[in-house]
Amino acid sequence: MAKQSLPLARVYGLLEPGPVVLLTTSGPERPNIMTMSWHTMMEFEPPLVGCVISNSNYSFELLRSSGQCVINIPTVDIAEQVVACGNCSGAALDKFATFGLTPKPAGRVSAPLIEECFANLECRLADADMVDRYCFFVLEVIQAWHDPAVQNPRTMHHFGNGNFMVGGETITLQSKMK
Amino acid sequence: MAKQSLPLARVYGLLEPGPVVLLTTSGPERPNIMTMSWHTMMEFEPPLVGCVISNSNYSFELLRSSGQCVINIPTVDIAEQVVACGNCSGAALDKFATFGLTPKPAGRVSAPLIEECFANLECRLADADMVDRYCFFVLEVIQAWHDPAVQNPRTMHHFGNGNFMVGGETITLQSKMK
Repeated sequence: MAKQSLPLARVYGLLEPGPVVLLTTSGPERPNIMTMSWHTMMEFEPPLVGCVISNSNYSFELLRSSGQCVINIPTVDIAEQVVACGNCSGAALDKFATFGLTPKPAGRVSAPLIEECFANLECRLADADMVDRYCFFVLEVIQAWHDPAVQNPRTMHHFGNGNFMVGGETITLQSKMK
Repeated sequence: MAKQSLPLARVYGLLEPGPVVLLTTSGPERPNIMTMSWHTMMEFEPPLVGCVISNSNYSFELLRSSGQCVINIPTVDIAEQVVACGNCSGAALDKFATFGLTPKPAGRVSAPLIEECFANLECRLADADMVDRYCFFVLEVIQAWHDPAVQNPRTMHHFGNGNFMVGGETITLQSKMK
């Protein structure tokens, strides 16, 4: 994919619809990938993203110690890999190699971008005050990439038990809000 | 709609896909409705939901002072009303009357349910510690209702500037995760 830098003020449009995302982290042994649905925008610009990462996940400590991650947004084209990444732990497994995903160096963080995702958001950990109570991390997006050819991405939206809604048609109504 | 009580452990399946929701609050003058996309699940059971409500919104103070609200989930069938609710303030307007939505008494909170929504989640404000810093409220869902006839709801998912993705097809993959 030929990706371009995306203005940070437009990041909310990628995460606000609630897609399943793949969170990548770097670590002393290898980078990891975690499938995640519990995230929300918290501020437009600079973009803040809140997300819950269970402390039973391998990515929890990698994010906390490195203070960096990438939020990668997949489409249904790689649904099998997305689910596979969510069904195993990176503690004893290289998920990139195992599931045939391609790590690419990020511009500003040590965690890798996933090439097969149409958008990649490089993040730094901005606020860890709610980690102990809720495993809730506040991330700041410091660099965003997207494939401008992907206009109506067929994102995946989990509604439990392995069932996913796939993004359908687009409608436009006269919203006055951002 | 003939709604039934939904087990609290199944609430996450309604919010995890990231739909646009309508948050209702009660107040000294009249109940209000706010259109909201910035929310995330934070715990399965009891279900915790985190959401951002700007302090410029009329609902901000209503939620903070009453400590209660309802998260109502609409489908595209009432898209015009959903957008209209997001484009005006309840400070000087009765949105139920203006937009033809039907308030129904909730079971456990003072805020009304919106009858036209296929699911309604009665919430109490569980944690306001992050309100000052991020306008971030942690809600606990204490009673949930849904129309069991709605199996693949055509929910709305905002991606900015009045553009919405509408929930499309459903796929099932062998997820081992909840």
